[in-house]
Amino acid sequence: MIKIGIIGATGYTGLELLKLLSRHPAAEVTWLTSEQSAGQRFGDVFPVAPALGDQVLVASASADLAGVDLVFCCLPHAASQGAVAAARQAGAKVVDLSADFRLHDPAIYEQWYGHSHQHHDLLAQAVYGLPELHRAEIAAADLVANPGCYPTSVILGLAPLARAGWLMGPIIADSKSGVSGAGRSLSLGAHFVEANENLSPYSIGRTHRHLPEMEQELRLLNAESGMWHVIFSPHLVPISRGMLSTLYVTLPEGVEPAAVRECYAAMYADEPFVYLLKPGRVATFAHTAHTNTCAIGLTPVPGTRTVIITSSIDNLGKGASGQAVQNMNVMFGLGETVGLM
Amino acid sequence: MIKIGIIGATGYTGLELLKLLSRHPAAEVTWLTSEQSAGQRFGDVFPVAPALGDQVLVASASADLAGVDLVFCCLPHAASQGAVAAARQAGAKVVDLSADFRLHDPAIYEQWYGHSHQHHDLLAQAVYGLPELHRAEIAAADLVANPGCYPTSVILGLAPLARAGWLMGPIIADSKSGVSGAGRSLSLGAHFVEANENLSPYSIGRTHRHLPEMEQELRLLNAESGMWHVIFSPHLVPISRGMLSTLYVTLPEGVEPAAVRECYAAMYADEPFVYLLKPGRVATFAHTAHTNTCAIGLTPVPGTRTVIITSSIDNLGKGASGQAVQNMNVMFGLGETVGLM
Amino acid sequence: MIKIGIIGATGYTGLELLKLLSRHPAAEVTWLTSEQSAGQRFGDVFPVAPALGDQVLVASASADLAGVDLVFCCLPHAASQGAVAAARQAGAKVVDLSADFRLHDPAIYEQWYGHSHQHHDLLAQAVYGLPELHRAEIAAADLVANPGCYPTSVILGLAPLARAGWLMGPIIADSKSGVSGAGRSLSLGAHFVEANENLSPYSIGRTHRHLPEMEQELRLLNAESGMWHVIFSPHLVPISRGMLSTLYVTLPEGVEPAAVRECYAAMYADEPFVYLLKPGRVATFAHTAHTNTCAIGLTPVPGTRTVIITSSIDNLGKGASGQAVQNMNVMFGLGETVGLM
Amino acid sequence: MIKIGIIGATGYTGLELLKLLSRHPAAEVTWLTSEQSAGQRFGDVFPVAPALGDQVLVASASADLAGVDLVFCCLPHAASQGAVAAARQAGAKVVDLSADFRLHDPAIYEQWYGHSHQHHDLLAQAVYGLPELHRAEIAAADLVANPGCYPTSVILGLAPLARAGWLMGPIIADSKSGVSGAGRSLSLGAHFVEANENLSPYSIGRTHRHLPEMEQELRLLNAESGMWHVIFSPHLVPISRGMLSTLYVTLPEGVEPAAVRECYAAMYADEPFVYLLKPGRVATFAHTAHTNTCAIGLTPVPGTRTVIITSSIDNLGKGASGQAVQNMNVMFGLGETVGLM
Repeated sequence: MIKIGIIGATGYTGLELLKLLSRHPAAEVTWLTSEQSAGQRFGDVFPVAPALGDQVLVASASADLAGVDLVFCCLPHAASQGAVAAARQAGAKVVDLSADFRLHDPAIYEQWYGHSHQHHDLLAQAVYGLPELHRAEIAAADLVANPGCYPTSVILGLAPLARAGWLMGPIIADSKSGVSGAGRSLSLGAHFVEANENLSPYSIGRTHRHLPEMEQELRLLNAESGMWHVIFSPHLVPISRGMLSTLYVTLPEGVEPAAVRECYAAMYADEPFVYLLKPGRVATFAHTAHTNTCAIGLTPVPGTRTVIITSSIDNLGKGASGQAVQNMNVMFGLGETVGLM
Repeated sequence: MIKIGIIGATGYTGLELLKLLSRHPAAEVTWLTSEQSAGQRFGDVFPVAPALGDQVLVASASADLAGVDLVFCCLPHAASQGAVAAARQAGAKVVDLSADFRLHDPAIYEQWYGHSHQHHDLLAQAVYGLPELHRAEIAAADLVANPGCYPTSVILGLAPLARAGWLMGPIIADSKSGVSGAGRSLSLGAHFVEANENLSPYSIGRTHRHLPEMEQELRLLNAESGMWHVIFSPHLVPISRGMLSTLYVTLPEGVEPAAVRECYAAMYADEPFVYLLKPGRVATFAHTAHTNTCAIGLTPVPGTRTVIITSSIDNLGKGASGQAVQNMNVMFGLGETVGLM
Repeated sequence: MIKIGIIGATGYTGLELLKLLSRHPAAEVTWLTSEQSAGQRFGDVFPVAPALGDQVLVASASADLAGVDLVFCCLPHAASQGAVAAARQAGAKVVDLSADFRLHDPAIYEQWYGHSHQHHDLLAQAVYGLPELHRAEIAAADLVANPGCYPTSVILGLAPLARAGWLMGPIIADSKSGVSGAGRSLSLGAHFVEANENLSPYSIGRTHRHLPEMEQELRLLNAESGMWHVIFSPHLVPISRGMLSTLYVTLPEGVEPAAVRECYAAMYADEPFVYLLKPGRVATFAHTAHTNTCAIGLTPVPGTRTVIITSSIDNLGKGASGQAVQNMNVMFGLGETVGLM
Repeated sequence: MIKIGIIGATGYTGLELLKLLSRHPAAEVTWLTSEQSAGQRFGDVFPVAPALGDQVLVASASADLAGVDLVFCCLPHAASQGAVAAARQAGAKVVDLSADFRLHDPAIYEQWYGHSHQHHDLLAQAVYGLPELHRAEIAAADLVANPGCYPTSVILGLAPLARAGWLMGPIIADSKSGVSGAGRSLSLGAHFVEANENLSPYSIGRTHRHLPEMEQELRLLNAESGMWHVIFSPHLVPISRGMLSTLYVTLPEGVEPAAVRECYAAMYADEPFVYLLKPGRVATFAHTAHTNTCAIGLTPVPGTRTVIITSSIDNLGKGASGQAVQNMNVMFGLGETVGLM
């Protein structure tokens, strides 16, 4: 059994992790931390059934870092850095669900997150935890930076084109996210009456922090590829969980829709968690709700050079905690789908 | 034109009032106060169209109390008392949407709200603003205490039986409310992901502060009536606005369903805002959404002495701001339905 | 491995069964039937990930009844009778999710369902599949009638009181159900715009077909108990799945709240799927969403003889498919919680 | 008073029309037709309050076409043609809410709608009812083709750029619509459990019937404009009413964001129902819910030639019935905003 600690367990990613790990045959959750709720049962923080709820939360200072094999860190960015460093110091492997170790270049991190990075050494070792792109490195890693939800849907939706060198010009990523992506901290935008019966774009264009993460990973797939950039427009929708990115790409002349489909089919043929929909189908939230799957639809637009890619994930599944468990499976040499099907 | 000021205008009742008054032919909103948002346009606080949004909020200290005919006070209880007193001192009539002037007995107020009442004189003058019960007093009043949303649905649903002296034993009031009833202040219970796809009872039994208000008004309808009490169970439902109370009454022996229906028909025959549904129909949220109407269904249960009354209102309409405007109409001698149909 | 066939697999209970069985270690789904969608992949009927979607639906005429150990029948009542009889004839055990074998008395069945029962012999053998009440009989049964969702929440919420003989007078069961309980057949009441932002009571009083089922099972718990009956009011709420019954019981004089709690604690102490909440807590949809658990809260009302019981289940879990798998586990001597935690 | 008949009144546009007209000071609804519900009260078809519900529906054969000044036709396309022709024959002016008279070229109509157009003469007289583009023609028209909801949001969002000749290449229109846009006819996509907690793209690319309508109107704004086309992707979101189009335009070189803003400000300066949001703001559903307004946000993307336009309307307001009433006001020389503010 893999002994596991979860730091910052009282958010939605923590809850989802605990649910997934509770039915994982090789995982044993040893402790859960929360500064605000230390001493309480998990079931006092979330209205859940007793099997999940009986574990008692501890302050992070009393968490036995050395007593676990793996730490999932669910703190917000900035707060995560120190906790990850402490866990690594104690010898535990780490999957960090924050943004702190996703961007390889600390200067870019500082530019987007507004504060400097304190652990350049760890940053240099961290592996971007998208198994479809970095499986071998994840298997060898001690520190995995779990991707953001938007980047997961956008990168998986564009990776075959990026690898082929077929991206060019502005790529439109119009993304729609359920409200759990905003976390459990209270905010007016996530207040029921404000979010319900409403749909709001926010941080559109090139301002959302998930943008550099997408572009970093897509550029790494083909160093030779030409000039392109992503226009990224997230929208909040009145749904608890789920995410869809509708991606608009102008293909280079001479690239036919059939070649595009072959390209996706080839790259994802053996991927257990990427589901290429049949021609004519589009991805919806329903395809992936409560799963670790990314469903991808390809819709070429006849008479134009545009192809529309619809890419759906569950933002708490493949977009966060499911992918974190997938990374754990890879890091510990387990079957990649264990506990996730 | 009636000159109007709204104190505490940046909550949902304030927004609804402003919408209603903007199409009221005899009302002119002179100022809106907000301590937190003073200096901002109303449209910066709520994403609304320009016609509503251009008015600028002022701090209450700079509101010209003497320059208006009527003040709607939308502050929370306790905070409301002082503001109401100041407005009355300045000569304005007041409709107070808080609970501060609804309970006639200050001792009961203190018992339920946990602090003493500072304005016994005003309390003695205040009229409970349910026009269907107190129309003449409201017409003569300078201070009207606008009823709570739950009490409006429960009192109108039970008043004919109370007046007839047909209430007895425990009366079950199982109420379901949209989330706007909880206001615009942030809380975990009103956080989208917590409220959505969820339904939660709260303060059930005889613990919710709206209970004494219901019993006060129902008892006033028939001093001779026997022993009865209300068991009141509010439930939060994932809906922005609306309210339904499902009321279970055991009729005295000898009281037939036909007599019950006559009793309701008689009391509400001329009421413009009470809609007695035909036999066989039940009230739903949809009957009253975005209206000032209370829809009432009567369902006798054959073979038993139970009658089920379903009573639906819009919690922001007849349950708050709509009723406040109805009270204004009565207080100023306008047609009662002006601006509300 | 238990070989399984599902008749009528393209409704929500079929989908949920397939999801549960796909991660059950001892179950193997051999075939799925659908008359309308025969020949299609399951994934063409529901937008689900490929692992679930690749099985092809067959017409029931071509289903190999003799080749499976267990048939789950998900047809509507009336249609179910013949299919169950055929499966039993072929030697398969059956869990029937319809109402056809729940009422022991065929006369009562005919009275409530409007047509006669064609298989009195099978009806006599059928066991009511609520393991908390009939575990031993289910273990020995070849035909189990899976309870309705409303009855599951009401019976589990009242069973300890019924057994103790403490029910009397009218018992109010005010139930709230998610829309999936209405099935996948199209209807105006389940049309999005009609159901969303709406809440509707329906079939209230003593008219809903789930009423006789509740009373049958509760009466069986104590033949000596006195005069009581259930007033049952279902309400449709704009939630996909989940159910809460708010139950109002007047206790006999002399029965103290502490005795009530002991009664529940004793009956449910060893039940893996009944969760008695701590004093002061009430059950919500969130407690049981996507689980096979029934969460029960006990709220005595001080100064009265009323106790309010809140009983929550997932209508597709403990209210249908989860309970069907629990029954399978009992019938085949597996651990009762296998595949359900 | 303008005497009004509504043909096909039992859909959502009919309900919304009736609500709007009931508070319009110059409108008097004389009759409402429905083939299926003839003889019923309107309140038997929709759970609405009595003021709206008491009018009795008649079959269209018994509607007095000659007795009204204006007919609103709310039938689906194809069915609408004959009804419009009959109303015109009887001398009534007509606002047709279907697609039957929107496309000027009958060949294009036939290509997109799959059947031939039976009334070329009427088609030649019909005016496209977007007052912001065709106010003078509408004032003189006897037959107005009320625009589709998607086209209203897209055309108003792009018109200033189209008029300036600044459209080029593929224009991405990623639209999100509430479910009422799909009408009241039952369909699996609008079944609550399918639509709720789901978000689905459909008819994406260049396949949706609203596409030719958008392109027709935008091209008419500048005959000299170069090569461009719209890629249009509608998405269904779990909201009852509302619509947002997120529009991505690549500006010609040399066109600066400031010039774009001036262009919109100039075109919409005096429009009562177009609300240009301040720099930095984006349009949301909440800006326009239950109004006849179109809210438009302009977001240039620094470092690129892309500008993102967010354009929000209420699909039943400015997208259907509100706009129909606006057209009525223009056709009858009333103040354009009467009954709509």
